[in-house]
Amino acid sequence: MIARGFQEEKLDDTSLAELKVLGRLGRGDILTMTTLAGSGHPGGSMSSLEMFLILYHLAKLTPKRPDFPGRDRIVISHGHTSPGAYAALGRAGFFPVEAAVLGFRALGTVFEGHVERSVPGIEWDTGNLGQGLSAGCGFALAGRMLHLDFQVYVVMGCGEQQKGQISEARRFAVKYGLNHITALVDYNNRQISGETREIMPQNIKANWEADGWKVVELDGHDLPAIYQALRAGRQEKSRPTLILAHTVMGKGVSFMEGKEKWHGAALPDDLYTQAMEELELPNVLAELRERRKKGDYPRVAPARKVVPLRINPGEPRSYGPEAKSDNRSAWGGALEDIAKLNCGVLGQSPVAVLDCDLASSVKTTAFAKSCPQHFFQGGIQEHHTATLAGALSTMGVLTFFADFGVFGICETYNQARLNDINGTQLKVVLTHTGLDVGEDGKTHQCIDFLGLAANLFGFKVIVPADPNQTDRAVRHLAVAEGNFLLAMGRSRQPVLCDEAGRPHFADGYRFEYGKMEKLREGDQGAILAMGPMTGRALSAWKILQEKGARFAVYNVPCPLALKPEELKEAAATGLLITYEDHHVATGLGSRVANALADLGLKVKLVRLGITGYGASAKPEELWEEMGLGVDHLVAAALESRRR
Amino acid sequence: MIARGFQEEKLDDTSLAELKVLGRLGRGDILTMTTLAGSGHPGGSMSSLEMFLILYHLAKLTPKRPDFPGRDRIVISHGHTSPGAYAALGRAGFFPVEAAVLGFRALGTVFEGHVERSVPGIEWDTGNLGQGLSAGCGFALAGRMLHLDFQVYVVMGCGEQQKGQISEARRFAVKYGLNHITALVDYNNRQISGETREIMPQNIKANWEADGWKVVELDGHDLPAIYQALRAGRQEKSRPTLILAHTVMGKGVSFMEGKEKWHGAALPDDLYTQAMEELELPNVLAELRERRKKGDYPRVAPARKVVPLRINPGEPRSYGPEAKSDNRSAWGGALEDIAKLNCGVLGQSPVAVLDCDLASSVKTTAFAKSCPQHFFQGGIQEHHTATLAGALSTMGVLTFFADFGVFGICETYNQARLNDINGTQLKVVLTHTGLDVGEDGKTHQCIDFLGLAANLFGFKVIVPADPNQTDRAVRHLAVAEGNFLLAMGRSRQPVLCDEAGRPHFADGYRFEYGKMEKLREGDQGAILAMGPMTGRALSAWKILQEKGARFAVYNVPCPLALKPEELKEAAATGLLITYEDHHVATGLGSRVANALADLGLKVKLVRLGITGYGASAKPEELWEEMGLGVDHLVAAALESRRR
Repeated sequence: MIARGFQEEKLDDTSLAELKVLGRLGRGDILTMTTLAGSGHPGGSMSSLEMFLILYHLAKLTPKRPDFPGRDRIVISHGHTSPGAYAALGRAGFFPVEAAVLGFRALGTVFEGHVERSVPGIEWDTGNLGQGLSAGCGFALAGRMLHLDFQVYVVMGCGEQQKGQISEARRFAVKYGLNHITALVDYNNRQISGETREIMPQNIKANWEADGWKVVELDGHDLPAIYQALRAGRQEKSRPTLILAHTVMGKGVSFMEGKEKWHGAALPDDLYTQAMEELELPNVLAELRERRKKGDYPRVAPARKVVPLRINPGEPRSYGPEAKSDNRSAWGGALEDIAKLNCGVLGQSPVAVLDCDLASSVKTTAFAKSCPQHFFQGGIQEHHTATLAGALSTMGVLTFFADFGVFGICETYNQARLNDINGTQLKVVLTHTGLDVGEDGKTHQCIDFLGLAANLFGFKVIVPADPNQTDRAVRHLAVAEGNFLLAMGRSRQPVLCDEAGRPHFADGYRFEYGKMEKLREGDQGAILAMGPMTGRALSAWKILQEKGARFAVYNVPCPLALKPEELKEAAATGLLITYEDHHVATGLGSRVANALADLGLKVKLVRLGITGYGASAKPEELWEEMGLGVDHLVAAALESRRR
Repeated sequence: MIARGFQEEKLDDTSLAELKVLGRLGRGDILTMTTLAGSGHPGGSMSSLEMFLILYHLAKLTPKRPDFPGRDRIVISHGHTSPGAYAALGRAGFFPVEAAVLGFRALGTVFEGHVERSVPGIEWDTGNLGQGLSAGCGFALAGRMLHLDFQVYVVMGCGEQQKGQISEARRFAVKYGLNHITALVDYNNRQISGETREIMPQNIKANWEADGWKVVELDGHDLPAIYQALRAGRQEKSRPTLILAHTVMGKGVSFMEGKEKWHGAALPDDLYTQAMEELELPNVLAELRERRKKGDYPRVAPARKVVPLRINPGEPRSYGPEAKSDNRSAWGGALEDIAKLNCGVLGQSPVAVLDCDLASSVKTTAFAKSCPQHFFQGGIQEHHTATLAGALSTMGVLTFFADFGVFGICETYNQARLNDINGTQLKVVLTHTGLDVGEDGKTHQCIDFLGLAANLFGFKVIVPADPNQTDRAVRHLAVAEGNFLLAMGRSRQPVLCDEAGRPHFADGYRFEYGKMEKLREGDQGAILAMGPMTGRALSAWKILQEKGARFAVYNVPCPLALKPEELKEAAATGLLITYEDHHVATGLGSRVANALADLGLKVKLVRLGITGYGASAKPEELWEEMGLGVDHLVAAALESRRR
């Protein structure tokens, strides 16, 4: 085979002959693995195969060292074509092809139904369509930031072109001159329900051209043509290229060709036999089936491709008792510090911020000014931006996606979910959560961020109570592994102080994920408050004191990680009252109820939270309306306390 | 003013003069209401105002009877331009304009920060950008189904054009020949962060033309030109029309024009004074502020525009003990019955099904065959389809949106949220939930549908356990008000029978929302099982019996509506074990923990559910791997039971 990297003028005859043989073998692999598994997607795997073969054999990759930093990135966006990708990867030496053929969709192997980055050579888990190009944009941006010279290839399906997120990604790529992306569409004109042109008529070429891409049409089974187009795409410096590859679903087996039936169904044994005959390949299905059953096949260890970070979080900023700040601004300040200490500093990881047209509100303008080359304006394209941020965060770039809560998680929940599945290291920063949003009304009041994030196994959530805690939380998550969600309201928060007037979360305070903070003592019950309600709980405490009621007040900044011993201590008062600016059924109160049940703790629990969509009014009015005023908390405490 | 309906050849001079005056007054209204409220979006309101004025004055509407069924539908997709819409509606007689000017963004009024359909004349709540055209498609489809001759107008912002969902809606409109939609873009070239053409370069005209729309460009402040274009759009029968209206943000007040600053900020008093002078309008701000403070202004009663349904749910189908069916097929069967009894039947409401290229898997093909004119194939465009379905469901059409769980709620959570805020009557039918999805792997395993739906105040969730219960649940939700989510797995479920072998949920069983069903007696604990785990709980019960352990088994099909008395009965056994094919932190177990806390019930709770993303394998293997096998349930029961 000719050298990798598309440096040769054209595909030579030897390489062409080799690839043709691999095409035949690869089709056999696809059919064998799906028939053995009894499920899977052979049709699209066979139409994409020539593209997969050329990419995995001739892109700048090192099969024996698939995590080489300067490698080209290949994203398989139509993840159900995993059999094709596995066949091509196996035949290119990334792993023994047998491991995939026999282990496809079997418990305990990396060869899942939709491609996952645990497979050597796979860069991004997909399965939800329409997200791959956004991930590719993330890789391309990272390449530029890290001065790595690689090309990004994104292979997609044609039905997938219907997804709106792709249009967002197209525009972003053109805006940022990500001309080192080559996208490929496997245009087999078939999707589950029939012909793509009938299911949803679409002029794919016109769509891409309208957004400024160069479009090359070719026969997607013509190996020399694909080679030439990929080579040209690599040389094209003025705009990104789409290769619109006309293909045939089920290509290579006469009775499968052009039949949508084989999009998502494995051949039964008799048809498998017929197909292997047609491909002139040996048929040892019975033997293979026996080996699969016995687990008699090589295993491939899961690959891990997340690049570790090196970040200096700097020294915390402290806000005094008189400081007039909101948590958003405290986040913006800490971000600015971190940018200065790391962006462009030798040996430190770069820091990137993704915005969706809300920088001034989410307080990232200072960052944008001091670090303009690492501030990316995604426009009103949240789906794309969320995915891009996730991919970027795996590349050794400390990545913040800052947005209003309703856009940063409600709108993009499924992007966060796929990021999480990908094991990203994304820091999602949400402002404008809760009724604290105020007059913008219910569509903009994100009262469910915790209820959403609680479904994502890899996300940690921090809800800081005041500017000091916010500052320290930001520095914590900047150096912590994994996905975080930092959630803040909109309005100014008082700096929380102890009874002597000293700030709670300034000097001497260190943010520790999961830790509750006891702010006031009391033995007739404990108020567990989250975020902006903590300051209000302290106001209630004072009133309660005056009325002779002794309540402890705890701040709970990490509601998804309650510590048993801390909860037990609070529960020892005999009464817990949760107090939050969040949907009462899915927020802090719900997490406490769950934890109590798990611990078998018998304690009275009163949950104060949001019980309906909010209106347009000032936050104070909304809280009052919703029974969340300080007076309501006082009343609930007095009514429920242990005497 | 000339007659409504764009029948006149052109805007006559008198009407033009009147509209011009209204433009000046309307601008005053916009500025007054935002300055009084101290927040809001004057800039876009002023650039959209001429379009709003013509639409609300000259479209086929009856201000005194804003719910007239044959009315044109006007959707304000860029909902933050509410001041402009309220001014135009008020000036057109839909309500006293004073009510909006003084009550804007005040608690207890309908005039919220983003438009809501509780305001007479407003058809759809927006605020999340990019969804309005999809809602418009829903209205347009309904018009056709109900043989109502009306036009649909959708007004959008230019920054909003970045949202991918719009491209999905465009294609759908063309596919279904919804040529009675006229879309309008307020192209003021400004969004929060600056010039739209810089924030995200986009050729809006080319985007729309590529998807088959006719595009007319004009000056969006030129009243006669807008009139002509709207008239032409109404007459155009070959394709839908986009009016790309070039406008000026803040139009009409010199110092506001072209300044993105005024996108989302009210004028302070001094600038307000200056603006009113320029508009030659009286300035009585102090007096109005006093009246607003005192609440001294007319109130407008919330409008309600959801059309009630008339549906015959038919007689349940019963599945005998030997039936081999999955719940999906039972849903498909019930749907077919309902379609036959209502579609095209005099006096009954029509039934519509929305599909996203999964009809054969979500079992709506029988419906598509028997009722092809009411089956809509949205392609792989879930965001668009979810919104469209919501809008359609408000129009007197029984609307089902059937999809895989991961697309029908994870991908479209925010669409469901906005539907819910709109008070839709949508029936979302999810198949392929849980690890029961099997080999397609983690991206396709929707293990969070309950965790998501629990955040939506208006959604009821039903998780049926077997084909009989599924059938009855479908007939229930077909005639019940409000939004429902019906969640089913993928695999075949045994028909659940009592100890004598008689089906539990067939003859004599009536589905009642919220009711738990006690399937087996026992006094050492109670197993609360949901969906596909119920049959497995019965298997465990048998093993437990043999081991001398006496457990009650309950089926819980409505986990969001647990009834206290039923829970108390189960809790009286001293031990509850929840057993579900759902994320353990956010599913049935979590709901039970919450309910126990609310009721103050002291009972041991053991929660068995999903604790990590699933792999690619057979459901049985996955459950076993995740500690959810029948053997695990038996072991947990034996270990925890009361002795």
